[in-house]
Amino acid sequence: MKVSEIGEFGLIDLLAKKVGEAGLGSSDKLVIGIGDDAAVWRTDASLQLCTTDTLVQDVDFVLGTITWQEMGWKLLAANLSDIAAMGGAPQYAEVTLGLPGDTEVENVLSLYQGIIALGAEFPLCVVGGDITRAPLVILSVTLLGVATDDKLLTRSSAQLGDLIAVTGHLGSSAAGLEMLTSGLKLDKETTSLLREAHFRPQPRIKEGQSLVAHGVKAAIDISDGLVGDLTHICEASHVGARVHTEKLPVHPLVRDAFKQDYLNMALSGGEDFELLFTAPRTVIDGLGNLSGTPVTVIGEVVADNPGRVTLLDDEGNTLEWTKKGWDHFSAKKPL
Amino acid sequence: MKVSEIGEFGLIDLLAKKVGEAGLGSSDKLVIGIGDDAAVWRTDASLQLCTTDTLVQDVDFVLGTITWQEMGWKLLAANLSDIAAMGGAPQYAEVTLGLPGDTEVENVLSLYQGIIALGAEFPLCVVGGDITRAPLVILSVTLLGVATDDKLLTRSSAQLGDLIAVTGHLGSSAAGLEMLTSGLKLDKETTSLLREAHFRPQPRIKEGQSLVAHGVKAAIDISDGLVGDLTHICEASHVGARVHTEKLPVHPLVRDAFKQDYLNMALSGGEDFELLFTAPRTVIDGLGNLSGTPVTVIGEVVADNPGRVTLLDDEGNTLEWTKKGWDHFSAKKPL
Repeated sequence: MKVSEIGEFGLIDLLAKKVGEAGLGSSDKLVIGIGDDAAVWRTDASLQLCTTDTLVQDVDFVLGTITWQEMGWKLLAANLSDIAAMGGAPQYAEVTLGLPGDTEVENVLSLYQGIIALGAEFPLCVVGGDITRAPLVILSVTLLGVATDDKLLTRSSAQLGDLIAVTGHLGSSAAGLEMLTSGLKLDKETTSLLREAHFRPQPRIKEGQSLVAHGVKAAIDISDGLVGDLTHICEASHVGARVHTEKLPVHPLVRDAFKQDYLNMALSGGEDFELLFTAPRTVIDGLGNLSGTPVTVIGEVVADNPGRVTLLDDEGNTLEWTKKGWDHFSAKKPL
Repeated sequence: MKVSEIGEFGLIDLLAKKVGEAGLGSSDKLVIGIGDDAAVWRTDASLQLCTTDTLVQDVDFVLGTITWQEMGWKLLAANLSDIAAMGGAPQYAEVTLGLPGDTEVENVLSLYQGIIALGAEFPLCVVGGDITRAPLVILSVTLLGVATDDKLLTRSSAQLGDLIAVTGHLGSSAAGLEMLTSGLKLDKETTSLLREAHFRPQPRIKEGQSLVAHGVKAAIDISDGLVGDLTHICEASHVGARVHTEKLPVHPLVRDAFKQDYLNMALSGGEDFELLFTAPRTVIDGLGNLSGTPVTVIGEVVADNPGRVTLLDDEGNTLEWTKKGWDHFSAKKPL
């Protein structure tokens, strides 16, 4: 059945039912969920977090390359990653869908299946949103969360002398995109890893909360690319950054498959959704194994060139660098 | 200058500056506004409200017919109206823009001018959002608010024996749309009234809070049309509704200009953003002059036909009615 046949309100009822059956429609604090003019919940934490992220057809995804379920997962993951980068816990999501009238209802349900699959890993309530007709698919989530113990990770808290570190691996999502767009045939293990990295990224919620608990104060999630996002920290904190490129944690399968490009992918590939953070050495040494996610020190915060990132090779030489990450208007993103 | 020239981050900086200069960039409770991974604020009220509404080019508006400033106003107004319909006070807005690369930066600033002009009527902070490239203009706001004294207006609180009432006039926005799309030439006063009603609706925030304070419990805002929105109340409250069509408050200039159509416009015209509410007669008698906005009793809540609206003419005869208001997929909205 098509959404034009079931109608806006029929679709809302169907989605509300699906969310409810999955246990994401209510909580002990939620007063009014889907179905009134606004969602309502009781607050108890003192610091509320709010972020929003949107995916547009043919800009952020191509129908047919990604499944609807993967789109739902990735849409929520991008928002969760922003909450993770503040060290917070997610609580409530509003989902906005712009859909052509001939969209299959089945596909919208699959989209929600992806949202639910990831949302169920936390306690997260889907409390409302907006559904509108559109000539192409537009997907947007606004995510509300809370900060634990009144502590936050911010872009503006990097200090001179801090080390710079990242969680997980870099460049895997960009490698996945390259594999998919170029039609490159890779072995099964690599194909699976790259597809997972690009379409089912794992937001670092637990890791963000763990960083806060250990005393880390400055972080951002890598959505635009390492250099671009580190530049955001440098600008907000009025410091410079030196990155030792040989230390970048690139997955061995990505290195093997993209011998020429893996460094560029790690430096500028977006959507890794790893956490990039800075902290004194003692704090980073105390992190240990961050919920099983590797942490790699890749550089240090410096006074030179405030607002800018300097890249060094393994002999300490400065690398030329112009591409600074993904800008929705200035950069051209491969589809 | 075009947004593709200034870039995503250049545009964000420009908009953040504009919001800040207008006094909408900070408050005593806002901890982090535009420029980090998520916005952060301190909560003190116990009931948090959240709503979101989206406008899509060629579905909800046509460029050239509406100015960018009017789009900004209307976008925020639609969201404020949902908070008004809960009896709440707005606090924080996240603005999401999907824009073609060749969009003039000047136009985006005008859009924000419209948001700011309306937002400044309340204390409202614009705390963040998302900007992305899109093949057509997509505008979305997520609005956070609080409920006063823990009291709410909901769709599900209508009681048997309640009277049904509305604020302001009905059908003016639909009349404005008809005037604009048909190219109808009307006198200056009517033209001004209709254009204002369609492009610069006034959300009933103060009126909603006043209703709550007077003990009203059930309300919705009229965004889809009177019959459609009253049906939402009937469904949520498991009651029926009788509406006396001769009592509908239609502006005299609308009656004069649309002698054949004004009743249909009042019944099914969307985007009036008036409040539709139900309450016992004693409560409605006690409302008096609601912040200067007229209140008109138009019908009563009944046990017959639960979930449905019955329309009566001035002799008490039932009127046939099929068009139930604006559904984004099932209905065809004139542009």
